[in-house]
Amino acid sequence: MCDREKDTNVRLSLPAVCVVWQTAMIILFGVFIRYDHESDAHWVEHRKHLNLTDIENDFYFRYPSFQDVHVMIFVGFGFLMTFLKRYSFGGVGFNFLIAAFGIQWALLMQGWFHSLDYTDGKIKIGIENLINADFCVAGCLIAYGALLGKVSPVQLMVLTLFGITLFAVEEFIILSLIHARDAGGSMVIHTFGAYYGLSISWMLYRPNLHQSSRLQGSVYHSDVFAMIGTLFLWMFWPSFNSAICDHGDGQHRAAINTYLCLASTVLTTVAISSLFQKHGKLDMVHIQNSTLAGGVAAGTAAEFMLMPYGCLIVGFCCGVISTLGYIFLTPFMEKRLKIQDTCGIHNLHAMPGVIGGIVGAVTAASASVEVYGHEGLVNTFDFEGKFKDMVPTTQGGHQAAGLCVALCFGIGGGIIVGAILRLPIWGDPADDDCFDDETYWESAVIHSSSGTKTQFTL
Amino acid sequence: MCDREKDTNVRLSLPAVCVVWQTAMIILFGVFIRYDHESDAHWVEHRKHLNLTDIENDFYFRYPSFQDVHVMIFVGFGFLMTFLKRYSFGGVGFNFLIAAFGIQWALLMQGWFHSLDYTDGKIKIGIENLINADFCVAGCLIAYGALLGKVSPVQLMVLTLFGITLFAVEEFIILSLIHARDAGGSMVIHTFGAYYGLSISWMLYRPNLHQSSRLQGSVYHSDVFAMIGTLFLWMFWPSFNSAICDHGDGQHRAAINTYLCLASTVLTTVAISSLFQKHGKLDMVHIQNSTLAGGVAAGTAAEFMLMPYGCLIVGFCCGVISTLGYIFLTPFMEKRLKIQDTCGIHNLHAMPGVIGGIVGAVTAASASVEVYGHEGLVNTFDFEGKFKDMVPTTQGGHQAAGLCVALCFGIGGGIIVGAILRLPIWGDPADDDCFDDETYWESAVIHSSSGTKTQFTL
Amino acid sequence: MCDREKDTNVRLSLPAVCVVWQTAMIILFGVFIRYDHESDAHWVEHRKHLNLTDIENDFYFRYPSFQDVHVMIFVGFGFLMTFLKRYSFGGVGFNFLIAAFGIQWALLMQGWFHSLDYTDGKIKIGIENLINADFCVAGCLIAYGALLGKVSPVQLMVLTLFGITLFAVEEFIILSLIHARDAGGSMVIHTFGAYYGLSISWMLYRPNLHQSSRLQGSVYHSDVFAMIGTLFLWMFWPSFNSAICDHGDGQHRAAINTYLCLASTVLTTVAISSLFQKHGKLDMVHIQNSTLAGGVAAGTAAEFMLMPYGCLIVGFCCGVISTLGYIFLTPFMEKRLKIQDTCGIHNLHAMPGVIGGIVGAVTAASASVEVYGHEGLVNTFDFEGKFKDMVPTTQGGHQAAGLCVALCFGIGGGIIVGAILRLPIWGDPADDDCFDDETYWESAVIHSSSGTKTQFTL
Repeated sequence: MCDREKDTNVRLSLPAVCVVWQTAMIILFGVFIRYDHESDAHWVEHRKHLNLTDIENDFYFRYPSFQDVHVMIFVGFGFLMTFLKRYSFGGVGFNFLIAAFGIQWALLMQGWFHSLDYTDGKIKIGIENLINADFCVAGCLIAYGALLGKVSPVQLMVLTLFGITLFAVEEFIILSLIHARDAGGSMVIHTFGAYYGLSISWMLYRPNLHQSSRLQGSVYHSDVFAMIGTLFLWMFWPSFNSAICDHGDGQHRAAINTYLCLASTVLTTVAISSLFQKHGKLDMVHIQNSTLAGGVAAGTAAEFMLMPYGCLIVGFCCGVISTLGYIFLTPFMEKRLKIQDTCGIHNLHAMPGVIGGIVGAVTAASASVEVYGHEGLVNTFDFEGKFKDMVPTTQGGHQAAGLCVALCFGIGGGIIVGAILRLPIWGDPADDDCFDDETYWESAVIHSSSGTKTQFTL
Repeated sequence: MCDREKDTNVRLSLPAVCVVWQTAMIILFGVFIRYDHESDAHWVEHRKHLNLTDIENDFYFRYPSFQDVHVMIFVGFGFLMTFLKRYSFGGVGFNFLIAAFGIQWALLMQGWFHSLDYTDGKIKIGIENLINADFCVAGCLIAYGALLGKVSPVQLMVLTLFGITLFAVEEFIILSLIHARDAGGSMVIHTFGAYYGLSISWMLYRPNLHQSSRLQGSVYHSDVFAMIGTLFLWMFWPSFNSAICDHGDGQHRAAINTYLCLASTVLTTVAISSLFQKHGKLDMVHIQNSTLAGGVAAGTAAEFMLMPYGCLIVGFCCGVISTLGYIFLTPFMEKRLKIQDTCGIHNLHAMPGVIGGIVGAVTAASASVEVYGHEGLVNTFDFEGKFKDMVPTTQGGHQAAGLCVALCFGIGGGIIVGAILRLPIWGDPADDDCFDDETYWESAVIHSSSGTKTQFTL
Repeated sequence: MCDREKDTNVRLSLPAVCVVWQTAMIILFGVFIRYDHESDAHWVEHRKHLNLTDIENDFYFRYPSFQDVHVMIFVGFGFLMTFLKRYSFGGVGFNFLIAAFGIQWALLMQGWFHSLDYTDGKIKIGIENLINADFCVAGCLIAYGALLGKVSPVQLMVLTLFGITLFAVEEFIILSLIHARDAGGSMVIHTFGAYYGLSISWMLYRPNLHQSSRLQGSVYHSDVFAMIGTLFLWMFWPSFNSAICDHGDGQHRAAINTYLCLASTVLTTVAISSLFQKHGKLDMVHIQNSTLAGGVAAGTAAEFMLMPYGCLIVGFCCGVISTLGYIFLTPFMEKRLKIQDTCGIHNLHAMPGVIGGIVGAVTAASASVEVYGHEGLVNTFDFEGKFKDMVPTTQGGHQAAGLCVALCFGIGGGIIVGAILRLPIWGDPADDDCFDDETYWESAVIHSSSGTKTQFTL
């Protein structure tokens, strides 16, 4: 395969995919999607019937968290991926494209599983569906992190279509069939998304990627841009983990737990980063990424009675493990396992996600009526309906089973989708064109100050 | 007119305008503005009288949306205008100045029309007034988009003073007299603001603007800065369109509708941008701007039962039309119509705004009791008081009339204000000093690393 | 002291401090910190007992404001300090480190004083504690502003440990013992934090700081980064001042007051900045900083009936005073008083904080039953329990006393901590290594495009 002859022209394929898929969305939305009773104009009659006030519309419980999650998806993930010196457009721009398509497909896929009204066969959506759609997209954006700079926008659209589909099935199995709890998605989002991306990256291994190594780093200001992403992810992670928790103490506790977990992670990330560099200098890559690991790990157990000190311990461990991952594991994986992981999602999402799943299982298994109260226990773990006979210890087992499902779907799905993405029809870049915005973006070239087509310098 | 002799010294005029107008604001606020009953210290008695709880204070219904709108005004519009390589200070800085002055004047102007308490002749303000003031300023910031880089800060203050005044009158006619609905301001804000700015730009036509063409483009990092603006506008647009909707289902539905509209727009923007470039490369200008057109178009009908698929269709069309506008219409307007539109507001605000007005009229005219329920219909369209006999079809006509009023005020007002701004007393820059921060900003020069006064390079 | 021989190696001290202190946090949290009744799983029983609905959980009153404050702490303060051309990593990165450690220590310190449950000796935390912890950290971040670029991360950790401790004691004296009101912390946060930082800077005076003067300025894009910080601080300041106010009208009024104060400040900042520059050009330093002074000054009186015109007057004065401070006072303080104030916190926090304290005292002293209503007066000033016999005039005196305490703690604490930080064991940089990220950051160097270790250029 002579890379130099690769055709990165997506002038037909990209518009075609966008228009066809958007048209399909319109048709499917027309057939299936309607407003739920809280966003429908009949609400005014409905709430009087139920003797509710307007402020008890779910919108007011969840909208602030929704907007925070929305910022994480578009600005958080988007700007975190601007760190490469010449791939900032691709980082933030393709993130935008994937997310905008993904949320539509997610509303359908998740709707069929979770929000289908069997009386009329319609999916009824409200604010909680929008949050779940954003969550679903997060899985694909995590996967993009491993592939950043090495794939075409058409490949990303394919990755997203399959990723959302797999996500919705996996989520249904874990949450509804297995009855595992996963409010912040340590398993459902992070473990799945990360292994999905890593498996695809393994399938798309590029032995000659060193040809574009001159571009595989950051410059001063691209690192500052990436800090915008880091901080918005870090700050709003309490909203991410609490957004779909139970009203009241559930949301409240999830926010506190995540806040504490993240604070602790920052300290140990700094410690390890400094310890392993000459003169104790800090590495921006660690500060940008490993500081977030605590939020990932707090996902599953966020709404449980993890206790404040428990959160600090989880954060402590994640900061250490994630930073050590960047220092030792990422180079090892690239050399030995042939997994090229541009953003280091194995350290930021995969390992902390698995830790989060384990923490969730242990915390659930050790739950007790003393700590939760009887009603609190039923409420927190949803021991109702056909699960009303479950007890904490069995719940712990179900949590562990959920983690396994997430791993299987991530790895299995990634290998299959990776095989599809190896087809030579997607317009992916040659090895020496990777990490370069000139491949897919016009303005990176034409906006030089002299007006002539020159290589821009930073 | 020899441009080179233009005097851009605003050392007397800018401080004078700022101090005099701010002093006027203090006096007028002293005479007219007071807290409304929900922000006054008497609320504690008031709410007991009405048997309300604290959480039913309007503050809790609207404050999260207010802050999102606030971010759109200052960071969204501000950073969207940082894309020029050497006018980022002017983009974000003058945006800041205009908005800070405009919100004060808007509280007064809108207050006289909408919040005047006839018992004591005072304007009573609360959180909804702050949102409306931010909305009002948005009209002027849109107009600034057409003029970016070509006017002095003093001209911008004059533009804002008249713009807010015109806005308040136009808004009163459209919303109160005509009884059109326009929650997200497709007509009132976007159509008015865009034609106001375009008309001023037409009046201030600069035949020799090509003299500063070396500066009329972006550099790599200025494009990334602009994406901050784009994304915060895009993410928070659901809050913009829902901020002043009815409590409960109105706000809920408006947020969902806008979210869907915007998602669809991104896909078709990418499609058209890729289709019209060599090799299918994407143009950053389109991604930064056209992706937002769906939010503009969803404004009027946001709280109506537009239906999820209807939103996707509106977004689909807006992405196509707006991007084609950038490719074909903007160059045509500059060459043939002598309208120089720096940010392309015709494509981002004017056309989508008109589309939004039309969508609103059609959706209103086709509203029915089956879809809305009886109470829902009255509630959504406010068929109460002296408008209690209105029906959807007449409402549709009123919506169309509202759109015409917005157009007339925009174009007419813009021509008059443009004539005022042509007076040679405002310190506007010469043609070859346009798009250059050195004209009005000190720090662009003095902060060179050697400490000597050198031309900075990027 | 030969500066060139200074050892900036923090490879042992920084990891040691981070790990030891984080471990101490885990132990202390384990012993002391538990969930309060609104974030505990027993809430579901508790709220039924009190006949409350879920939406009346304090979480829904305060979470949106909390997240805005959180953004101010991490993005606002962090990016405001990126303005130096080669210290952006240190600005945003060390801000991150200080804040993440500080909030943990603040939860403990403030908890012991304010949230201790005497029945079981535990600190019970909820969302209000998280907001207060963020507030507490703000004091230390303000202090960092004076020292930016001249201290090591280990010094900053020490500064934070003592700063939080002093803050908690000072806050307890002012709010609980003296019974002064200070919702937005003009005295408790800004006056204390600024004089704490200035005193430390005075103790750490560097006579040869001019050796790094080549780095003590901004470049074009670093100034744009700093505007991100400015705008997020400016926009969210209404949330800062209202976050812990009384439910209902208290929060509502505080947001309105702050919004108006800030708007007015922008106009006078622009006026003074333009008036004192040749050709009336604006100085980015003033726009980035002085525009925020109104928010600081609105802190104490934010929840009082300051009246809308009163807010505009306060903002007017602060814009003038703060900008004049940058022009005249900062150079004077550096030359004559040997206080080197990198970010000009004396102009942004110290003077406006003192003004805020005075405005608070005057407004409190002139409060009356006519303006507040009887219940409103008791409610706003908390004239309950052992303070039920207080009247507005005595409250005014208590406010003034509170301001004095803040000043004493700031100056006294700063001198003591400054003396500790002069010990030659903290790894602080030599005079010609100040304002340079290469001292403590690895990636600023290694990410050059050629891959070789070269001095990066901007």
